[in-house]
Amino acid sequence: MIQANHTLTFQTPKLSFFLPETGIFVPYFEALDIGLDPEYLITAKPLAQLIMKPLAQTFYKQRKKYSYKGTFGHSLLVGGSIGKIGAMVLASRAALSAGSGLATAFIPECGNTILQTAIPEAMALTDVNDDFISEIAINFEPSAIGIGPGMGQEKQTVKTFLEFLSQSKRPMVIDADAINIIAANPSAVKDIPKRSVFTPHPVELGRLVGEWKNDYEKLKKAKAFSKDNEMIIVIKGANTITIFQDEMYINSTGNPGMATAGSGDVLTGIITGLLSQGYEPLIAATFGVYLHGSAGNIASQVKGFEALIANDLIENLGKAYLELFIQDESQIQDEEEKNNG
Amino acid sequence: MIQANHTLTFQTPKLSFFLPETGIFVPYFEALDIGLDPEYLITAKPLAQLIMKPLAQTFYKQRKKYSYKGTFGHSLLVGGSIGKIGAMVLASRAALSAGSGLATAFIPECGNTILQTAIPEAMALTDVNDDFISEIAINFEPSAIGIGPGMGQEKQTVKTFLEFLSQSKRPMVIDADAINIIAANPSAVKDIPKRSVFTPHPVELGRLVGEWKNDYEKLKKAKAFSKDNEMIIVIKGANTITIFQDEMYINSTGNPGMATAGSGDVLTGIITGLLSQGYEPLIAATFGVYLHGSAGNIASQVKGFEALIANDLIENLGKAYLELFIQDESQIQDEEEKNNG
Amino acid sequence: MIQANHTLTFQTPKLSFFLPETGIFVPYFEALDIGLDPEYLITAKPLAQLIMKPLAQTFYKQRKKYSYKGTFGHSLLVGGSIGKIGAMVLASRAALSAGSGLATAFIPECGNTILQTAIPEAMALTDVNDDFISEIAINFEPSAIGIGPGMGQEKQTVKTFLEFLSQSKRPMVIDADAINIIAANPSAVKDIPKRSVFTPHPVELGRLVGEWKNDYEKLKKAKAFSKDNEMIIVIKGANTITIFQDEMYINSTGNPGMATAGSGDVLTGIITGLLSQGYEPLIAATFGVYLHGSAGNIASQVKGFEALIANDLIENLGKAYLELFIQDESQIQDEEEKNNG
Amino acid sequence: MIQANHTLTFQTPKLSFFLPETGIFVPYFEALDIGLDPEYLITAKPLAQLIMKPLAQTFYKQRKKYSYKGTFGHSLLVGGSIGKIGAMVLASRAALSAGSGLATAFIPECGNTILQTAIPEAMALTDVNDDFISEIAINFEPSAIGIGPGMGQEKQTVKTFLEFLSQSKRPMVIDADAINIIAANPSAVKDIPKRSVFTPHPVELGRLVGEWKNDYEKLKKAKAFSKDNEMIIVIKGANTITIFQDEMYINSTGNPGMATAGSGDVLTGIITGLLSQGYEPLIAATFGVYLHGSAGNIASQVKGFEALIANDLIENLGKAYLELFIQDESQIQDEEEKNNG
Repeated sequence: MIQANHTLTFQTPKLSFFLPETGIFVPYFEALDIGLDPEYLITAKPLAQLIMKPLAQTFYKQRKKYSYKGTFGHSLLVGGSIGKIGAMVLASRAALSAGSGLATAFIPECGNTILQTAIPEAMALTDVNDDFISEIAINFEPSAIGIGPGMGQEKQTVKTFLEFLSQSKRPMVIDADAINIIAANPSAVKDIPKRSVFTPHPVELGRLVGEWKNDYEKLKKAKAFSKDNEMIIVIKGANTITIFQDEMYINSTGNPGMATAGSGDVLTGIITGLLSQGYEPLIAATFGVYLHGSAGNIASQVKGFEALIANDLIENLGKAYLELFIQDESQIQDEEEKNNG
Repeated sequence: MIQANHTLTFQTPKLSFFLPETGIFVPYFEALDIGLDPEYLITAKPLAQLIMKPLAQTFYKQRKKYSYKGTFGHSLLVGGSIGKIGAMVLASRAALSAGSGLATAFIPECGNTILQTAIPEAMALTDVNDDFISEIAINFEPSAIGIGPGMGQEKQTVKTFLEFLSQSKRPMVIDADAINIIAANPSAVKDIPKRSVFTPHPVELGRLVGEWKNDYEKLKKAKAFSKDNEMIIVIKGANTITIFQDEMYINSTGNPGMATAGSGDVLTGIITGLLSQGYEPLIAATFGVYLHGSAGNIASQVKGFEALIANDLIENLGKAYLELFIQDESQIQDEEEKNNG
Repeated sequence: MIQANHTLTFQTPKLSFFLPETGIFVPYFEALDIGLDPEYLITAKPLAQLIMKPLAQTFYKQRKKYSYKGTFGHSLLVGGSIGKIGAMVLASRAALSAGSGLATAFIPECGNTILQTAIPEAMALTDVNDDFISEIAINFEPSAIGIGPGMGQEKQTVKTFLEFLSQSKRPMVIDADAINIIAANPSAVKDIPKRSVFTPHPVELGRLVGEWKNDYEKLKKAKAFSKDNEMIIVIKGANTITIFQDEMYINSTGNPGMATAGSGDVLTGIITGLLSQGYEPLIAATFGVYLHGSAGNIASQVKGFEALIANDLIENLGKAYLELFIQDESQIQDEEEKNNG
Repeated sequence: MIQANHTLTFQTPKLSFFLPETGIFVPYFEALDIGLDPEYLITAKPLAQLIMKPLAQTFYKQRKKYSYKGTFGHSLLVGGSIGKIGAMVLASRAALSAGSGLATAFIPECGNTILQTAIPEAMALTDVNDDFISEIAINFEPSAIGIGPGMGQEKQTVKTFLEFLSQSKRPMVIDADAINIIAANPSAVKDIPKRSVFTPHPVELGRLVGEWKNDYEKLKKAKAFSKDNEMIIVIKGANTITIFQDEMYINSTGNPGMATAGSGDVLTGIITGLLSQGYEPLIAATFGVYLHGSAGNIASQVKGFEALIANDLIENLGKAYLELFIQDESQIQDEEEKNNG
């Protein structure tokens, strides 16, 4: 499905550049040029694909002139609990800013005023419960669903979430507490629509696939989980790795400034927004991760690493999309050489 | 009333460029130069008028020095329901940003804090009902009314809306659920002040005028509705078409990034804001559509298409007004040729 | 007290340039160069002073290094009623942005969340009543008071307002409904601290001083009111005129884009903020009007006239202060001529 | 612990440049070049250290690539009371913008909607009491605590605050009413974790250490308090002085525009955010003060002094971090001379 223009064969030691335990010994990479020896780019049998700009460009689906709101779908975001409604504000805003035609947030009653004040472009549907989600009731057919941000794990939340899963038909994005609930209820995995996207950080991944001894075993376990259940796993980190069955996609964008509250909620919103526009789940995941990291790189140019907050990622999503089609000098040179060669 | 400086005769096949079913085969137009063969600009009997910048400039009414808040009127926006208050935030903010002197939003009680926090320049009047509009009670004489955004169709809402119509004297903007209610209560059309502006998207238009077999029949039905009821119809889409009786006005601004939640609420606010400043309804409609699209084009320069959200349209309305009076190179050339000729 | 560097003698007909009824026949002035024949600038006995940049510069009090929050005072803003809390948001934000060290808004209970969300730098004190002000109770000694924005005229509001006046010792800013209440209770004027600043628009002025036959009589009546009661009157309009006894100060900044909802609330906040920093009332009024208009001119450069909303004035107050000390070309030329002469 | 590259010996009279009572006679310093005679920079036994850019650079801890949200800690901010929730909005936003990985605000119930609307990246934990803090109950282990902004001194607040202190193990930031409570309950000082950071303005300092006759005695008393209790004291003012035992650190950044409501709340947030990232308390205090002042200087370039409000400091924190590594011309010259020398 993916036609990569940069495909890498990592002999085992070189994959280590991108893994936390071993990559720590490798000097810091430039964000937009990850500094690989061009040798690696000549490849035989791919172990992993590095998602760089030329590949990301191929993911992008151009908007047609005679499109309308419905063309880009209606995202449903489910989550939030008392004191953690902000996660849903960020996820909903990100879904719209990634291009979703419409977005509705299903949240506990206590989040109603918060959500609509902070993001008037989104609609709110509220649970009968004030403080947490107790009974998911949706009055429309969503094009894509993102679930988990700020959701908590109240007993009734767990129950309604598990029921909701078994009624859903389309791939969804499973994040945060939704992952934790699945981890605690492993038999529920079979109810999740195939090719859904899990977005765990390492601790959540550990709960989901069990503990590992080193990064290689971590990848092995994630692949096994993905294969057994036909799910996509986005392992968030310095080089976010997306796994689908035996395939691995290593992201090239992003920076340590993105290790900030709400960054994951924004990613969930972006991937949901891409799904709602009709991107295939694996593309939505890898492209979403790329755009998220690119927005972070652009934001860091004026905010640095420390001052970058999650909303800055949303604010810079537009520039991340536009940046896709700005030719870098290296690309221009490549093409000139091709023409002269 | 309109003195167009670009009037087009579309022989039937050429109108097809601007219609969804046929226009899809025509290559993508540049937003600000819609790429028509200049031949089309030499015309005999106009079938439709294309609203481009030189014409839009003639719409603009310059502000007089000794004007005050009252000169620019007091817009009333009516709508909102639980979970859909954001629509009213956007419409009210747009009315003020289009130049209305004052703006009051009539909303259900649950929207009170949301609206005033998000747009402190507007005033709020609240319904006795918490969740939806049940009894429209206004304590001032509005200069212009925009009704429908986020309003819903609760039984009591329908009742008070229909009563409100029969008491209104001035042209108003009828949007969203207000259109749906009219469609379901066709006898109410006679109560709507003449030259009111309907702003349906295609689905809403279908409910209002009945199904069509192709775009030509759609236009025919819209014209018939307009003529029978003396109403202005703004058919929202890639080339928004404004219809008044037999006249058709095709908009030249806008882009697919505007197919986003709340974009229509902003348009309702803009047209209401223009009405409140004394623009005639047909000018308010066509000029409002032009400015809305122009703001979208300006916004897309930094936001791209996907990341553009409805509030970006409001943020760029000022630039859309200012852009009206920036001479394009082609215009400068035209004038030079005239002088030299 | 004021050492003007541009003082004008208006022979009666020339004052007419600045008055609505007659000025309407005078061609539109440039905002920053009001286009007076230099002849008018050579003067004998001043009838009015025109507040232009060189004079405004002399008003500015430079901040000392060893100043602290307390140096710049604590502004109290009183007002707001259900649906009109936004007026208080704007006034409080403007007071802080004009330089007040602290600002507290006294508002009805329903405004508590609105105000603190929209302007976290301000503090809120809430009335026991949810919907309107019924009993003004302040727990600190304000340096300056601005009263009236969005306040309404409920019976209890009138009562507590009149009592509050009689207990106040320092000059305050009287705006909007506070003016209307005074107009309806003329005997209360004697309770208002001397040199307080009234900021009526023409309709409010009419209620306060009685109807007039023409602009000259309007000024005469305003002067009489000012003299009788030792109050400062700011007659808001295209050329805002500040009156103190027999003195008249005509403002040179501003534009018709400022005829927008909340613009007056911002002015009230600015003047209150200047009072709290220790500016004398007449300077606070004339300088505040100048800065308000200058912020409007700066804002209009990117927002135009129609899209300018009241918050844009606050956003540009900083630039208005900084602009005070940017030499215009004409000034540089003047100085060069002086040096060469 | 601190390796200063600019260490000053102030013979007694020269310290006076930086103290309010005496510094008032010294001409105004440029913000970024405080204009000291280079003679002072050659030093023997340091009485005080001046924190200028080269020293501040050494404080900065570079972010590692394989860091994640947890690396940068979870800040807890405790405070707020009815009408003073904004202080907590500013402190929480500042903690995140200083680089804290996560931030939770513990606030009275009435602040729940305010906080989450204004800063969705933060989480809220609410007290059982609606209006003030009555029982501090935290469900996680914070990396750093900032306490006091907007907290008030209700009897129950005092009680729960004092209990909370005795259970805390890590250095915290003690601000505003938290200082006032300690001042009124001096025996509680022994419960505060050693090397905690007090951030009093002069009035609060007076309550804490007793009245002084002149600035020298003030410093002496602050040093004694610091030594006796092993606490860090940040004396806020024109040249904020940080004291730890016998050591004194004089800040070189900042301007009188920062004497504005909420400026101190922002500082509390910044220092807490630095602590949560693992900065040692004395570095967190002096570096935080430097960054706060630098953000203020950058903000003042577009906002001037009067219009600068506390949120502008947060908005410019990113630029303050980035500015650390922009070489000034003087530094470039220094290095050239070294190389040539």
